[in-house]
Amino acid sequence: MARLVMKFGGTSVADIDRIRNVARHVKREVDAGNEVAVVVSAMSGKTNELVSWTKEISPIHDAREYDAVVASGEQVTSGLLAMALQSMGVDARSWQGWQIPLKTDNAHGAARIEKIESELLIERISGGQVAVVAGFQGIGPDNRIATLGRGGSDTSAVAIAAAINANRCDIYTDVDGVYTTDPRIEPRAARMEKISFEEMLEMASLGAKVLQVRSVEMAMVHGVRTFVRSSFDDPESINSKEGSNDPVGTLICDEEEIVEREVVTGIAYSKDEAQISLRRVPDKPGISASIFGPLADAHINVDMIVQSVSEDGSKTDMTFTVPETDAAKALQVLEEQKETIAFENIQSDTGLSKISVIGIGMRSHAGVASTAFAALAEKNINIRAITTSEIKFSLLIDADYTELAVRTLHAVYGLNKYA
Amino acid sequence: MARLVMKFGGTSVADIDRIRNVARHVKREVDAGNEVAVVVSAMSGKTNELVSWTKEISPIHDAREYDAVVASGEQVTSGLLAMALQSMGVDARSWQGWQIPLKTDNAHGAARIEKIESELLIERISGGQVAVVAGFQGIGPDNRIATLGRGGSDTSAVAIAAAINANRCDIYTDVDGVYTTDPRIEPRAARMEKISFEEMLEMASLGAKVLQVRSVEMAMVHGVRTFVRSSFDDPESINSKEGSNDPVGTLICDEEEIVEREVVTGIAYSKDEAQISLRRVPDKPGISASIFGPLADAHINVDMIVQSVSEDGSKTDMTFTVPETDAAKALQVLEEQKETIAFENIQSDTGLSKISVIGIGMRSHAGVASTAFAALAEKNINIRAITTSEIKFSLLIDADYTELAVRTLHAVYGLNKYA
Repeated sequence: MARLVMKFGGTSVADIDRIRNVARHVKREVDAGNEVAVVVSAMSGKTNELVSWTKEISPIHDAREYDAVVASGEQVTSGLLAMALQSMGVDARSWQGWQIPLKTDNAHGAARIEKIESELLIERISGGQVAVVAGFQGIGPDNRIATLGRGGSDTSAVAIAAAINANRCDIYTDVDGVYTTDPRIEPRAARMEKISFEEMLEMASLGAKVLQVRSVEMAMVHGVRTFVRSSFDDPESINSKEGSNDPVGTLICDEEEIVEREVVTGIAYSKDEAQISLRRVPDKPGISASIFGPLADAHINVDMIVQSVSEDGSKTDMTFTVPETDAAKALQVLEEQKETIAFENIQSDTGLSKISVIGIGMRSHAGVASTAFAALAEKNINIRAITTSEIKFSLLIDADYTELAVRTLHAVYGLNKYA
Repeated sequence: MARLVMKFGGTSVADIDRIRNVARHVKREVDAGNEVAVVVSAMSGKTNELVSWTKEISPIHDAREYDAVVASGEQVTSGLLAMALQSMGVDARSWQGWQIPLKTDNAHGAARIEKIESELLIERISGGQVAVVAGFQGIGPDNRIATLGRGGSDTSAVAIAAAINANRCDIYTDVDGVYTTDPRIEPRAARMEKISFEEMLEMASLGAKVLQVRSVEMAMVHGVRTFVRSSFDDPESINSKEGSNDPVGTLICDEEEIVEREVVTGIAYSKDEAQISLRRVPDKPGISASIFGPLADAHINVDMIVQSVSEDGSKTDMTFTVPETDAAKALQVLEEQKETIAFENIQSDTGLSKISVIGIGMRSHAGVASTAFAALAEKNINIRAITTSEIKFSLLIDADYTELAVRTLHAVYGLNKYA
C-alpha cells in the first residue's frame, strides 16, 4: 500500500468520456490498495475561454476577479471527477483550494503556496476516500481565491504530495515520459527511466514542456518523487503497484536513487534566439548592472552571457542572448542607454539556436564539453558562444544546424543506445 | 440616497456586451448616490451545460458535487461584472456565497438560507464599494457549496436585501413588470404599478413566471419591497432616484403601501390540467390521507381539491386536479390503493385549464365570484370545479375555452381600463 497523488491535465479531462477514463485510472490505484489524492486541471480549452472573457471585459483587470473567474474551471472538473468515481463505487469527494485550505500569498494571478493544512485531507484519505483536488488554486490571506499561474496544477499536485507525505506524485500527461532529446528530431531518442531533479530542472527550463519548472523546484525542495506517465494508456491494463517497474514513464527523483548515472542524460535545444554584442565597453565595476538593469526593467529575458577579456584590460566585449522576438526592443533599450554604458558599437544577429547538454555525471567527469566541440567541428558547425554550469553546458549556433547538432551530440554521448 | 439590491438573470448577462450593459445600469445607481449590492445568475445556457455534464457522468449523483459544479456559473459572472464595473471607474468586488458567508442548511441542490452574516458586506457597501454577489449559492454546515435550486438567484437577491436592510430589491428581467393577465391572450392587459406580496404569490404560483415563488415568500416575510423591471431598457436614460415613479416596472410591496386597492388585480391561468374523480368513497376520518398520501409519495403535485357531500352522509365524491403529465401515474397509484381507499369507481379527464381570479379586495367584497359565474355562463363556458381562498378563486374549465375565459374575466372585472 502506498499513498499517491495523481495529477491529470486539461487534455486528459477534456470531455466526459475522458473524465471517465481518468476515473478508471484512479479506481485501479484504489483497487490496488493505495490511498489516493487526485489533482485536476480545467477541461481543455475552458481556461482559455475564461481568460478571453476577462480580457474582453477589460485589458487591465483586478487579478482577484481574474482568479475568481478562471479558477472555476478546475472547480467544475473536480466535481465531475468525484461524481464519475462515485458512479464506479469509489468513495470520493471534491476539494477546492479554499476548502482544504491551501493557503497562498497575496500575489493574485501568480500566487505562491505558503501552507497546506492537510490534517483533514489526510484523515479522509486514510479513511479510504479519494480526495479530488481542484488544481491551480488556493486561498489568499484576503479570503479570496488565488490562482498559481498557468500550469499551476503541476505545482498544486507536488505541493499536495509533499503535504500529505505521498510516496509518489504521478503526473499523467499526453507523453509517456521524459526523453533524451526531442523525438521529432532524433527518432532514436529514448524515454529515460529516471532523471534527477536537477537535470529535470535544466530540461524543463529549456523547453521540454512536460512539467512546469516551479513544480520541479518544489519537488526537489520537498523530495517528492514525481513520475511522468501517459494518461492515454488503457487504465485497466497497467500493473502499477508501488515499487513495480511495470508502468511506463519517467521517475524524477533524488540522484541518490539513480544507480547508474550517465555522464550525459539529455540534449535540449531552443530555437529563435538572438545574440547581441556590445563592443569595447569600459571594463569597470557596475558595467553589468548598467546593461542588464534596463533590460530587466523592460521585461526582456536575458539568457547566455559571455564577457570576453579585452587586450589592454580597460575595455571588454559583452555578448548575450535574448529571445528573437525581444531583439528589436533590446536594441532600442540599449541605444537609449548608450551614453551611460559607453559602448563603442553594437552588433546583433538573429536566427540562432541554443543547444544544451545535460548530465549530473559532468560534475565528476572532466572534458565532457570538449567531446562536443570536436564532434560539431567535424560537421563544420560553428560555435558562437559557450556557457557552462555544474551539470550543463550550452552552445550557441546557427539555427540551420539545430537538428544536425542535436543528432550529432545525441550520438556522440552514447544516447542512441536505448533504441 | 438609498441602499439597493439589483438582481440580473441569465439572459441579462448572456455575453460580455450584456454584462457591460448591466454594469451601466449599476453605475447609474451608484452615480445617483445609492449604495448597491448586485446579485447575478450564470450566463444564459451555462447552468444547463453544467447540469447536462453532471447528468452525463451519472444519472444519480452526489448533490454536494452537483452543487460544486453548477455554482461555478454564477462565480464566473460575478467576477466578470466586478471587472466591468472597475473598468468604468466604479469600485466593486465579487462575493461568492462562502465568502459572505451566506449560510444554508444541508439540503444540497435545494438548500434553504439560514443566516447571512452581512456585517462585512454592509461595511463595504457603506464605504461605497459595489458588492457583486454570486446568486443561487451559499455554504452549508459541511463547509461545502450549497445551491438554492433553479431560479434561486431571485431568492438570493431578496435574502441579501433583507440582510443589508435595503430600501428596495430591483429584479431586472426580460419583461418590464407584472401584467393583469398574459398579454399574448389579452392585448389590453396592462402592467400593474403595484401588487401586494400576497397577490404576487398567487400570480407567481399560477405561472406568471416573473419571480420564483420562494423569493416572493421571503420578500413577504421580511417586508422587502421588490421591483420587477426590464434589463433591456437603455441604462442611462432612466431616472431612478428612490421614490421617483419614473422607472417602468411593478413594485411588489405590503398592501398598506397600495392606496387604491382593486377588487380584482389579475387573471392567471394554467393549461394542461387533468381532473380525477373518485366516486362513492367512504365518508370517514382519514380518507383524505389515504388518497393524497400515496400521491405525495409518488411526487405528484395535487392542486384543486373538491369534496362533495353525499346524499346519505356515508359516501362522498372526491375530485382533484393534477398536471396532465402526471395523470396516468396518478391513476396507477390510486388503482394500487383501491382496497385501502375503497372507492367505487374512478373517472378522469384531461385537456382542462384552471383560471384564477386574484385580488386582495375580495376580502372585503362579497359576491365577487358570482360575477365570474354569470359572465362565463353567458359565453356557454361550463365550470367543472371551483375552489376559493381569501384573495383568489379558481375555476376548472375545458382548455378550449381558456383564452375566451381569460378575456371575458379580464373585461368583466374592469381590467381593460388600463389600455
